[in-house]
Amino acid sequence: MRAWILDGGFGYEQLRMVERDEPPLSPDEVRIQVKACSLNYRDVLTVVGVYNPRLKLPLVPLSDGAGVVVEVGSAVQRFRVGDRVMGCFFLDWLTGEPPRDLDILKRTLGGPLDGMLAERVVLPERAVVATPAHLDDRQASTLPCAALTAWSALFREGHLSPGQVLVVQGTGGVSIAALQFGRLAGARVIVTSSSDAKLERARALGAHETINYRNTPEWSKEVRRLTGGVGADQVIEVGGAGTMPQSLRAVRPGGTISVIGVLAGAAGELALTPVLMQNLKLQGILVGPREHFEAMNRAITLHQVMPVVDRSYPFTEAPTALKALGDGHHFGKLVIDVSEA
Amino acid sequence: MRAWILDGGFGYEQLRMVERDEPPLSPDEVRIQVKACSLNYRDVLTVVGVYNPRLKLPLVPLSDGAGVVVEVGSAVQRFRVGDRVMGCFFLDWLTGEPPRDLDILKRTLGGPLDGMLAERVVLPERAVVATPAHLDDRQASTLPCAALTAWSALFREGHLSPGQVLVVQGTGGVSIAALQFGRLAGARVIVTSSSDAKLERARALGAHETINYRNTPEWSKEVRRLTGGVGADQVIEVGGAGTMPQSLRAVRPGGTISVIGVLAGAAGELALTPVLMQNLKLQGILVGPREHFEAMNRAITLHQVMPVVDRSYPFTEAPTALKALGDGHHFGKLVIDVSEA
Amino acid sequence: MRAWILDGGFGYEQLRMVERDEPPLSPDEVRIQVKACSLNYRDVLTVVGVYNPRLKLPLVPLSDGAGVVVEVGSAVQRFRVGDRVMGCFFLDWLTGEPPRDLDILKRTLGGPLDGMLAERVVLPERAVVATPAHLDDRQASTLPCAALTAWSALFREGHLSPGQVLVVQGTGGVSIAALQFGRLAGARVIVTSSSDAKLERARALGAHETINYRNTPEWSKEVRRLTGGVGADQVIEVGGAGTMPQSLRAVRPGGTISVIGVLAGAAGELALTPVLMQNLKLQGILVGPREHFEAMNRAITLHQVMPVVDRSYPFTEAPTALKALGDGHHFGKLVIDVSEA
Amino acid sequence: MRAWILDGGFGYEQLRMVERDEPPLSPDEVRIQVKACSLNYRDVLTVVGVYNPRLKLPLVPLSDGAGVVVEVGSAVQRFRVGDRVMGCFFLDWLTGEPPRDLDILKRTLGGPLDGMLAERVVLPERAVVATPAHLDDRQASTLPCAALTAWSALFREGHLSPGQVLVVQGTGGVSIAALQFGRLAGARVIVTSSSDAKLERARALGAHETINYRNTPEWSKEVRRLTGGVGADQVIEVGGAGTMPQSLRAVRPGGTISVIGVLAGAAGELALTPVLMQNLKLQGILVGPREHFEAMNRAITLHQVMPVVDRSYPFTEAPTALKALGDGHHFGKLVIDVSEA
Repeated sequence: MRAWILDGGFGYEQLRMVERDEPPLSPDEVRIQVKACSLNYRDVLTVVGVYNPRLKLPLVPLSDGAGVVVEVGSAVQRFRVGDRVMGCFFLDWLTGEPPRDLDILKRTLGGPLDGMLAERVVLPERAVVATPAHLDDRQASTLPCAALTAWSALFREGHLSPGQVLVVQGTGGVSIAALQFGRLAGARVIVTSSSDAKLERARALGAHETINYRNTPEWSKEVRRLTGGVGADQVIEVGGAGTMPQSLRAVRPGGTISVIGVLAGAAGELALTPVLMQNLKLQGILVGPREHFEAMNRAITLHQVMPVVDRSYPFTEAPTALKALGDGHHFGKLVIDVSEA
Repeated sequence: MRAWILDGGFGYEQLRMVERDEPPLSPDEVRIQVKACSLNYRDVLTVVGVYNPRLKLPLVPLSDGAGVVVEVGSAVQRFRVGDRVMGCFFLDWLTGEPPRDLDILKRTLGGPLDGMLAERVVLPERAVVATPAHLDDRQASTLPCAALTAWSALFREGHLSPGQVLVVQGTGGVSIAALQFGRLAGARVIVTSSSDAKLERARALGAHETINYRNTPEWSKEVRRLTGGVGADQVIEVGGAGTMPQSLRAVRPGGTISVIGVLAGAAGELALTPVLMQNLKLQGILVGPREHFEAMNRAITLHQVMPVVDRSYPFTEAPTALKALGDGHHFGKLVIDVSEA
Repeated sequence: MRAWILDGGFGYEQLRMVERDEPPLSPDEVRIQVKACSLNYRDVLTVVGVYNPRLKLPLVPLSDGAGVVVEVGSAVQRFRVGDRVMGCFFLDWLTGEPPRDLDILKRTLGGPLDGMLAERVVLPERAVVATPAHLDDRQASTLPCAALTAWSALFREGHLSPGQVLVVQGTGGVSIAALQFGRLAGARVIVTSSSDAKLERARALGAHETINYRNTPEWSKEVRRLTGGVGADQVIEVGGAGTMPQSLRAVRPGGTISVIGVLAGAAGELALTPVLMQNLKLQGILVGPREHFEAMNRAITLHQVMPVVDRSYPFTEAPTALKALGDGHHFGKLVIDVSEA
Repeated sequence: MRAWILDGGFGYEQLRMVERDEPPLSPDEVRIQVKACSLNYRDVLTVVGVYNPRLKLPLVPLSDGAGVVVEVGSAVQRFRVGDRVMGCFFLDWLTGEPPRDLDILKRTLGGPLDGMLAERVVLPERAVVATPAHLDDRQASTLPCAALTAWSALFREGHLSPGQVLVVQGTGGVSIAALQFGRLAGARVIVTSSSDAKLERARALGAHETINYRNTPEWSKEVRRLTGGVGADQVIEVGGAGTMPQSLRAVRPGGTISVIGVLAGAAGELALTPVLMQNLKLQGILVGPREHFEAMNRAITLHQVMPVVDRSYPFTEAPTALKALGDGHHFGKLVIDVSEA
């Protein structure tokens, strides 16, 4: 079977498509015919060598993928051949709080463990979940990291409730998922972007209000105006250094800023005073465990949520897709069709 | 101005309409022209002498009312003449957890303090909140106890999130509000009733599934069947002794039963074993503080929620309305039009 | 090796000591030389057939045991031969909330799975934790169910903080552990018992106040008196029907009653009104996951907590020990010395 | 009566002692004979004009004071003449979450409202709490801001439980209170300082381990070493820019950094990546509401906690005391004896 690997060094030019033998299954493993992968900014950072410069190569990149089970190990109980499934970013964070054991946090797909950009992959059954029936594989491939990160910000580390004000920065994968989930939960959702066209699409997806931060660089003032001077209950912060000062001013006393930054931009810096002076919480969001993936899927199924796929690329053009994500012109998710390889 | 009072003893026949002088305002008080009151089962129990047999009479009954500010004390800051407002059940539980100080829990409208069934009432401004603009006074009058109790079960003591399964017993005021708020929050809502006609109305309001417990007395089995054997995340328990055993079987391990019983039925008894064996939580819900009333109103306003008024009665027929509530044939709330007195 | 089994029916007389072959290890299993077991009321109920009348026999009883690793499977990573360890009541509840999957809650030692009353047992390594170094095996054997249940009531489902008032009913295994952990957390601990001698021992262990409920049947009044009329923040309720009405009156508005009852007495019945009227929480406590067992052990180690072993019995007298627990005269835990078999 | 005022501009030299008339009491107010005040870094920043350069002058400085009630308004219910009391930093944050209403957060003693550095002050009774009987007025004066901030970090915004690892930076007022409260709650407490002498005093107060960050600049590595590589559960961060990078490395995945910085140092900057990558929480701590002040006092009373007063100054030397706090050589709190004026 064919797979893309990053080999011999970092950079888009180090990506190569290779033919690989397929290993036998251990009793608790399943083999998945990958149908589609989605791209996260972490994948770009990994390939260019910024995410982890000491990463061992070769590596099959990409954290997210969806497909169908084609073989099951002798002890597998939760899946059968033919089941449509998605992989879990963390192989061993199954339930509960972030594990104390750092090794568990390090067993992640797409680096340091081989990822999903291959025609077939092998995963332990505990790190696999069923695909909601109404989604195609492209849509499903967007869920494991981006959607679960948004879900975790709102419902694992937060308790968004109806009528609360949620500010979503931008229109990337996490942000659009946060918009969709915020609407499910009855929140009032405000979206920021530099593009009026993207803001119009955000409104079509349910955003109550939108702010073009190019026209309104101090968008926190607009958030305060829209909320009677109070501020937002929660901000999905994906921008890092550039946007945090505005986020700190946009949030109400006691409010929360969910820090997703590194997935969409460089790390930032921060003056701490507002955090203290208004009893704010900055909460880092590290994807999440399988139980929340499954809870999210129940919500997605109940409400027939359709993840937003901006564009799909053929398997053979994976490097092009990664570069496109780095360029940042997308709205929602970029996807690679593996099944058409 | 005219008011209904319970005087000389308990029982519907002890209700009398009287003419009352109006007291001058203290600096922090507002005078409200009452336009509508809604009825809660607590009001019935109070009038018949079951709720508190030692209650001091005479008493103006009813906890819930809405109207318009007609006069403000010299120090009042939050309201002006002409503002449309509702009263708060607890005069002094403004924010935070249930107060340790039992005296605060005892300062409630409709007993022991004079309630809302009068043409004009005087309240401290701290115990008054603004009426959502899209609601008429009948609708608004349903919010202070019934709607806030439902809200508190789901969002003050709970954290209902999208895709969770909420079972709502019956179609009284708290239950219909829980159905509406459950839908706002993205939950999957299952409603039980003995009437197919009421269940049809519940589905029209958004219930995903309904169970006629007359046909299906062991409705917990149906809840488990609908949830793949897992059970519900939360049950709104309004029935007391008769329904609790089914609620205990309908809820998933670690799930919550929100105890609202006394408002809609006699106190019940309970075998504790299932509570222990599945790590269940039984959470009593005592209306809630003003800050949650205001949060609820923001949600109601954002989503233009329309409370369900089953029927309204003229001011002169208040005893008839109370008896009707006791009979239990209503769907949603019964209301008294005070403005048409 | 020798083991006790319950065979051919329920009742103390159905317990037999037998010689058993030892199975080979799977890759993820460890073999433990059991040194001591402790008894829980669940064990008594299991043996007499009340806990689960449909239980499959034969069964090796007892949920709790401690010993030393004598053999490890080929894939075992967390333990080596010679490590002192304890078993986990739940084989597969490792972290997080109570699992939705009822099957996980059913995989428990001492029924339906074979338990610890044997010279050697085999457990998956995931269901084993290290013994705190300062404890002997008798003491360690008291931790897996009784101590973890107390811990879970205070810190998994609760957040006991310094200065809060904790009422502990009785002086059985869970209660004495709750007293010890309550003291660690800075709580003010009130213990009830029918025995002045036991209350004196409770005070020696750190109880701030004690109440003899034989002399003071309405002990809730004494709790209220001691707390300036407010009531306790949390009650550890182990008594079931007889004690719950007092617990409901002993707790403050918004307070918690931790339901442990079935482990120490028959299931009870309950009038629900006070739950509602004071916004109380009744929280069932089902032991807990391994991560909390480990957190508890860190606390036990830091503070060199010494579990209270009332008496130990030789392996050959296991039925006598079980009857003694049923008689209820103990203070803390009853233990069986397996190593001296 | 005499009071210190900051008048005509900012700076220590703008502090003047003046004679002031005493206003009559409103019905809900009490007059307090101030016996002692304590100093917070906020007071220094206020006097030198950094905290709020637009502050209206003249201002009586200092947020914290304790004394005795010498007169009560006609409607006062909670206090009588002769009661020993302390003031609350926030006049109107009484219970619950940080208020949405920014005006409530702005009504604070010692700026913009007149503070406690006066022989007599007038406060609304709602903003006054009783002094624990075992404390003298100097000790009591340390509680309203510094101790309550530490308490809030551990128990209002956190849930510190026995055996958890708490890192306390430095030995100022908040830090020493956090050490004392951390011990009450059964935590393992690690204290950092640049002074071996101060670390020795910290150990005498109960610190389990200490780290001299002058000798060990990368003290996060030592924290990790002491915790088996895992890291601390919570860090009390008072240092701002200089210490945050170490705090971020010292805390475990999912752990909490409580941000107190501005009270003890300049605002800092922060690279956000570790927050995200380990699902960390940065929680600003803004003192707290009266209900937590009272809860803290119950804990202080139960355990007879003795706040650490480093040194006291006569009323006439208030500017000297403020400069001494700015110099930062203290251990615990600096206090001004007002009663000896």
